[in-house]
Amino acid sequence: MQRAAGPSSPSCSSTSDCFPLSHRSAARCGSESPAEPEKHEVRADHSPTDLSRMRSIVSFYICYLLCLGLGLACVVCVSYWNHRWRGGFAWDGTALQFNWHPVLMVTGLIVLYGNGAVLYRVPLTWGQNKLPWKLLHATLMLLALVLSIVGLCAVFDFHNAKNTPNLYSLHSWIGIAATALFAIQWVVGMAGFLLPCSPISLRKLLKPVHVWLGGSILWLSIAACISGINEKLFFVLKGNGNGTQSYANLPAEAVLGNSLGVLIVAFGLVVLKILSTLNWQRPESRPEDMAYAPLLQEENE
Amino acid sequence: MQRAAGPSSPSCSSTSDCFPLSHRSAARCGSESPAEPEKHEVRADHSPTDLSRMRSIVSFYICYLLCLGLGLACVVCVSYWNHRWRGGFAWDGTALQFNWHPVLMVTGLIVLYGNGAVLYRVPLTWGQNKLPWKLLHATLMLLALVLSIVGLCAVFDFHNAKNTPNLYSLHSWIGIAATALFAIQWVVGMAGFLLPCSPISLRKLLKPVHVWLGGSILWLSIAACISGINEKLFFVLKGNGNGTQSYANLPAEAVLGNSLGVLIVAFGLVVLKILSTLNWQRPESRPEDMAYAPLLQEENE
Repeated sequence: MQRAAGPSSPSCSSTSDCFPLSHRSAARCGSESPAEPEKHEVRADHSPTDLSRMRSIVSFYICYLLCLGLGLACVVCVSYWNHRWRGGFAWDGTALQFNWHPVLMVTGLIVLYGNGAVLYRVPLTWGQNKLPWKLLHATLMLLALVLSIVGLCAVFDFHNAKNTPNLYSLHSWIGIAATALFAIQWVVGMAGFLLPCSPISLRKLLKPVHVWLGGSILWLSIAACISGINEKLFFVLKGNGNGTQSYANLPAEAVLGNSLGVLIVAFGLVVLKILSTLNWQRPESRPEDMAYAPLLQEENE
Repeated sequence: MQRAAGPSSPSCSSTSDCFPLSHRSAARCGSESPAEPEKHEVRADHSPTDLSRMRSIVSFYICYLLCLGLGLACVVCVSYWNHRWRGGFAWDGTALQFNWHPVLMVTGLIVLYGNGAVLYRVPLTWGQNKLPWKLLHATLMLLALVLSIVGLCAVFDFHNAKNTPNLYSLHSWIGIAATALFAIQWVVGMAGFLLPCSPISLRKLLKPVHVWLGGSILWLSIAACISGINEKLFFVLKGNGNGTQSYANLPAEAVLGNSLGVLIVAFGLVVLKILSTLNWQRPESRPEDMAYAPLLQEENE
């Protein structure tokens, strides 16, 4: 780990500047941690301020491990479902091509997207030039977007081969909206935050929209996945003599599909918890010490 | 309107204390609004600080009107769908009883819930004793919870009358989880924030969890609604000779149902935008000037 926000951080001029907002307000409000919150000179001792920071970092990594574990579980679960119960994968216009759709959407639009979103929260990335992490964030998101688009191609090809109309269900409306917003978000984010010519005022204007839309796209994607899994299970578990039991009887495949939905929701909750916790924000992007600077000079927006 | 946060507010000791975080950081970063952000004495002039505050309040009310309008549109749309296309309402174990389910869930778990969540953001409620607004928040949420529970009873009764199993689909798992979390959130919120005996340290601990879980419950409810509408439209629009067209042909009912889903998502996006915008937080609950005090003395947690 390079550096956590704290008194020794070069980007922080004082203990209170370096300390997360919620700690400051908690201390002001008489919390159980009497961290001398009103002192503005640099502290030399290592407790209880350091202890509190360490607790915050440890609790972040527990949450982050949960995020990684749940993400992996989602990918394994959706792959196993389609491999074991839906016949596996192909790219031939049959149902085997359709099977790529849930795997690629869950992997791209949920798991890779969520991991790309929380990247800046990892303390390991703090205290270094932000540019490489920005490029990694953009690359992870681009990979997520490409997987999602290939996942959409899988279902469009399958529908076209069967002469089934595209984009009629609410699931498809929400899913295509999530992917379209994601594509717009990526292009605008790239132009606004990575191109050296983008003005600081534009970045300042974009950032809150980028953050809010980022979280909203994840929830839209989750809603699309939940409705898609639900629809698929009703489609395939009819219990009308095609060798399958009815969904209503909750056969093993139904339990697996429902569990995938629960895992996706749990993953989303953890990602949104990480994103919404002020203590875990990359230090220089916290409101009290955030400063904008052109790209390739000081990476702070 | 009673009072907006500003230099004249008794809860704010200075311009910068009263001013939203994002304004402060924006000004520090050289925004287009040169609002002398570092001055800590009370200002007597009315621009550009007052102009900026006024802009913030006006943009809040535009967003709030959008929230009210979208909420009303959701209730009208779900009621019209079930009245016009599904035969109306009854409480007799038939499909007419089921029709109460979408109407009550959308009205309770989405629209009333969302409006209860953004209540503290309305500037009209600022600068007064918080207790009446807390009671209104708790009452709105209780009403939302009761409507949701009656909505669940409608579908359980309908299933029982038809000997259909309950709680097998992913839609039902997500929906019941959202309602259960909502009930827990209400009880814990009531005990933690409204009972005079609850200690300040407990309130401090509860608040971030209450806020994060509050937003998460809304998104879970939206995912449940989207999957429910999608499932219902596939159930009823089979196009197999029962007098209806197939969902795939997008008849009028399908367009109405899909539009309801889009309205619900738009409502959720606006509510989450209102909740996540720091400028629009009730002044004394902003991190920099939040102070905890026992209930019935000073209502600040």
